[in-house]
Amino acid sequence: MTIGTTALAQKRADEPVQTIPAMRNLDPAMVELGKKLFFDPRLSKSGFISCNSCHNLSMGGSDNLKTSIGHNWQKGPINSPTVLNSSLNLAQFWDGRAKDLKEQAGGPIANPGEMAFTHELAIDTLKSIPGYVDEFKKVFRTDKLSIDEVTTAIAAFEETLITPNSPFDRWLDGDNRALTSMELEGYKLFKESGCVACHNGPNLGGNSFQKMGLVQPYKTASTAAGRVEVTGKDADRLNFKVPTLRNVELTYPYFHDGEAATLTQAVDLMGRLQLGREFSKDENAKIVAFLKTLTGQQPQIAMPILPPSTDKTPKPRPFE
Amino acid sequence: MTIGTTALAQKRADEPVQTIPAMRNLDPAMVELGKKLFFDPRLSKSGFISCNSCHNLSMGGSDNLKTSIGHNWQKGPINSPTVLNSSLNLAQFWDGRAKDLKEQAGGPIANPGEMAFTHELAIDTLKSIPGYVDEFKKVFRTDKLSIDEVTTAIAAFEETLITPNSPFDRWLDGDNRALTSMELEGYKLFKESGCVACHNGPNLGGNSFQKMGLVQPYKTASTAAGRVEVTGKDADRLNFKVPTLRNVELTYPYFHDGEAATLTQAVDLMGRLQLGREFSKDENAKIVAFLKTLTGQQPQIAMPILPPSTDKTPKPRPFE
Repeated sequence: MTIGTTALAQKRADEPVQTIPAMRNLDPAMVELGKKLFFDPRLSKSGFISCNSCHNLSMGGSDNLKTSIGHNWQKGPINSPTVLNSSLNLAQFWDGRAKDLKEQAGGPIANPGEMAFTHELAIDTLKSIPGYVDEFKKVFRTDKLSIDEVTTAIAAFEETLITPNSPFDRWLDGDNRALTSMELEGYKLFKESGCVACHNGPNLGGNSFQKMGLVQPYKTASTAAGRVEVTGKDADRLNFKVPTLRNVELTYPYFHDGEAATLTQAVDLMGRLQLGREFSKDENAKIVAFLKTLTGQQPQIAMPILPPSTDKTPKPRPFE
Repeated sequence: MTIGTTALAQKRADEPVQTIPAMRNLDPAMVELGKKLFFDPRLSKSGFISCNSCHNLSMGGSDNLKTSIGHNWQKGPINSPTVLNSSLNLAQFWDGRAKDLKEQAGGPIANPGEMAFTHELAIDTLKSIPGYVDEFKKVFRTDKLSIDEVTTAIAAFEETLITPNSPFDRWLDGDNRALTSMELEGYKLFKESGCVACHNGPNLGGNSFQKMGLVQPYKTASTAAGRVEVTGKDADRLNFKVPTLRNVELTYPYFHDGEAATLTQAVDLMGRLQLGREFSKDENAKIVAFLKTLTGQQPQIAMPILPPSTDKTPKPRPFE
């Protein structure tokens, strides 16, 4: 045994950030069905927008737009959060209004500004497609095909979208060579300056709601009010779910309004607004270098082949 | 040797339809780069529309809409033809204005009604992304990164999108059990009634331009004029490239204007308009049964992971 391999065995268990936990056992057939639904634009009124449109698995599970594009090119009110590792979040949506992925999955389908469909029409569509009917039956062992089964399957697929083995995770697992000294200095700054107070745990965030503009008020044209929409408490105004920092290199632009275009800007603004601190250019660069070590192995997705519509399938209505 | 395997060996070489020819050798690295570009919405002004948006490889390489949705939700003038097996066509677009896939690939990027970008901005975008710059360099062995390399790579990827081994191809290869008697009767009707006059060859179409409404004028609200736009000859008015029938079960709705919602309607209308013939309900059903045997093995596509933008990458402008 060499010194090198001994060093590798020493896990860093006392850090405020942890590696991604192992995925729980999921029925592969349900995951496969969920994947089809995730990619199926027939769950939208237009037949053009799928879950993957705004949570694009080629682009870090996001759309890389300030705010998303919905039915009829409507400008969305908020930045599309990444679907990657979203099962690790305490709740879903920026304001946490859905308690889990299953509850979330039904939202965009019926949101007039997003997929602009109804759950009823989505179910009518799926029921008209024998390929789906058979698959739902096989997976759920029942003839029932409702929004409940649809969102259960989508959530199961989304649970598989974890990104393990980032350089930072390898470092946490004891691989001293996984981070450069600059990246490590960035991590130290990230901890010592207080970023880690909110961005901690296995998802470096996603586990609390925090006020955007804690020390200095945040100026934005966005009308998103945050957690107050759910709780009705004025104290929750501009409280948002802390976003995960995993794969943050891929999920630009940043913040609930997407107004920070780059990581450099995001780190600078977070320092000022949340910590009352001005990071020097050098400090900023180090933190950014650290943040880029959070890019994990992206899910390898084989594009699903969707079962074709039939003569009875309701027609898409993109221009109505 | 059993009688069964003897029967299998007997290829049907004298049919007016042939199996899909083997793909020519392509550089796997170029195909991979082309796949990334095909899926990359950063080649559009909005950052939202990629080649795959309208040529969705989960849905038979089409968008299953009457006419496509372009930048700012513009209603396209024509039905999006499938990209599957498109390398077998004599030319690209319904009017054949692009001589090959490479020439085609540049069109939608710069079309104000589609991706609404410019070639210049697309190249600026790619040049700002080190992941792309490295990959272009590796593939093309040059520092040059122009629309020429971009469309060459996209065309190489598209060339791989063939769908061999459909039941009908297996029948052509001598497997007598590949078609039911109803499907076979449909094929006989397809030949004897004259459909095969235009829908022949390995792609069952794609190899000639023909007048839409040959026997009976075609009534449509569509303003697409067809081949005349390319040749300037009035005789070419409403001449369109005969679409492939491969995977036609997946590429609904039909015709250049997408006005035939189902195969039954399409067969009925083709009979009347092109052949002056009314297919009985039974004949129609047989032909439709045959057409569904043309669904081949769909390309198995691993979704590409796109290299992230950098601070220098031009920002998408979806709402300008």
